[in-house]
Amino acid sequence: MTVSFRDRNVLITGGLGFIGSNLARRLVELGANVLLVDSLDPEYGGNPFNIDGLESSVRFVRADVRDSERMIDLIRRQHILFNLAGQNSHLDSMHDPHTDLEINCRAQLSILEACRRENPGIKVVFASTRQVYGKPRKLPVDESALLQPVDVNGINKMAGEWYHILYNNVYGIRACALRLTNTIGPRMRIKDARQTFLGVWIRLLLEDKPLEVWDGTQRRDFTFVDDAVGAFLLAAESEAANGQVYNLGGMGAFTLEETARMLVDLNGKGRYVVRDFPAERKAIDIGDYVADYRKIETALHWTPKTPLKEALERTLSYYRKNLSRYL
Amino acid sequence: MTVSFRDRNVLITGGLGFIGSNLARRLVELGANVLLVDSLDPEYGGNPFNIDGLESSVRFVRADVRDSERMIDLIRRQHILFNLAGQNSHLDSMHDPHTDLEINCRAQLSILEACRRENPGIKVVFASTRQVYGKPRKLPVDESALLQPVDVNGINKMAGEWYHILYNNVYGIRACALRLTNTIGPRMRIKDARQTFLGVWIRLLLEDKPLEVWDGTQRRDFTFVDDAVGAFLLAAESEAANGQVYNLGGMGAFTLEETARMLVDLNGKGRYVVRDFPAERKAIDIGDYVADYRKIETALHWTPKTPLKEALERTLSYYRKNLSRYL
Repeated sequence: MTVSFRDRNVLITGGLGFIGSNLARRLVELGANVLLVDSLDPEYGGNPFNIDGLESSVRFVRADVRDSERMIDLIRRQHILFNLAGQNSHLDSMHDPHTDLEINCRAQLSILEACRRENPGIKVVFASTRQVYGKPRKLPVDESALLQPVDVNGINKMAGEWYHILYNNVYGIRACALRLTNTIGPRMRIKDARQTFLGVWIRLLLEDKPLEVWDGTQRRDFTFVDDAVGAFLLAAESEAANGQVYNLGGMGAFTLEETARMLVDLNGKGRYVVRDFPAERKAIDIGDYVADYRKIETALHWTPKTPLKEALERTLSYYRKNLSRYL
Repeated sequence: MTVSFRDRNVLITGGLGFIGSNLARRLVELGANVLLVDSLDPEYGGNPFNIDGLESSVRFVRADVRDSERMIDLIRRQHILFNLAGQNSHLDSMHDPHTDLEINCRAQLSILEACRRENPGIKVVFASTRQVYGKPRKLPVDESALLQPVDVNGINKMAGEWYHILYNNVYGIRACALRLTNTIGPRMRIKDARQTFLGVWIRLLLEDKPLEVWDGTQRRDFTFVDDAVGAFLLAAESEAANGQVYNLGGMGAFTLEETARMLVDLNGKGRYVVRDFPAERKAIDIGDYVADYRKIETALHWTPKTPLKEALERTLSYYRKNLSRYL
């Protein structure tokens, strides 16, 4: 893999965000010329501290993916685009569906149009989401499942994902999409539950407050961020990935209550309370979700390698040191 | 059915268009208070002549569905919304993807937000398209087929359709969607192939010019507009339809060459030539498509009643009389 990224110009949208910044660190190690673009909008995942110590090894441009003129300039000389900028909060997408549309649909179309016009040789890897499936009809969910999204975010990400596949198929802009499940690890947003419920759990735990588990019986899978980063790199390298969508997944599935208990146990103190779902979240909830990731396992030899316990330990350890940087 | 629509306030977006104006005629017969909204953009299907003779029986407001403030006012006192305004050209959606997005995604979201805030008791029937399926994996295509759109229009209509289903499921705005196949009949756009290839065939035939059939071996199904109108009315009346998507279909499937030959025969003169697909159309072509419409047949007792030959005869006869109004 070292060879693939050395001296390559790599653009990461959402580059100061959770996955973007972890990906940037790995790409710097691999010798890539890394350009990070992020809006640093306080409602999203971008955090300057995420590239702490990396400042002299990457270029950073503060820009919003909705600024299509700006994106044209930034895309022009890149070999690879990791297209990670997005509005990811399901609840925010219901309160402000138009903003979700602007970021997750219109900006994606502009980015792909910029690729087509200015840089058709670029390779694009898009961060999609399991949210496109909606409420699973059967578990685990593989890529042949119908897309039946249950919130505005899921609908718009579905469109954003398909623009990428379309531009691959019609214009030969090599693109693929990874459907992420709960990705967790250092540098995630923990201020609130906008990125993942696990973020705010970590915060509450470290602040000695009880975490709230809604319902608790739901099953979910988790991908540790280093494993997710590995998938992005493999997808970028592989020509077989072009035009494909792949589920990512985790090592096993856990109920939310099991996950909360594991987190509290690992922390050595703290507690959780189980509550009913708030009504507005219940209305867009997807129930149990477990990914079948055999497609990417077969095609790209990707497999998650970090057990949930280890993922939680490493995450807790990171935020114990750096909590104040994320509040 | 008479009872359902008498004295009901009914809004049709795209009301001067092909299906909208035919639907308006029927609704006037049924005693509804019909309000038609249309942008009359020359690139789309709206044509003032489509409501010739109906002017004193309906209200018409020239407005663009992208004008969200305007739409709020128009939606406020309606019992039923037939949401038919759309950008329907597959090729235009590739040349100008952002306009397609504005009409088929953003405006739909604004309309549904207006319903939610101002008129949550409204019933909405949305005109979707078989284009959301992309290239069929097997025929006939039923609603359990994966959505794999092959052009920007198909992606945006997929999003627009799902917004409707979502607002039904989450907010109780009663909504459903009909996935139309080739709808044909009086009042369709025949100036060009933007609405349906059959439109421009009729025009060329009546202008004594040869029609161009691309490839010719592809199979398609056709719904006569009166049958489509019947489906919209049934969907509006049925509470069982809420939250559902239904394919419409036709009586049998025909190759494009068979269809051209039937049209020329019915006209008594004229000719067609078979040509290769233009490259930019080939790139977004869906191949054979035949709808399985058993879901709506079972649920709403809808079935197409007009054989293709009769549909073509009635269409030809209309345009023989009114050709100049459509050029």
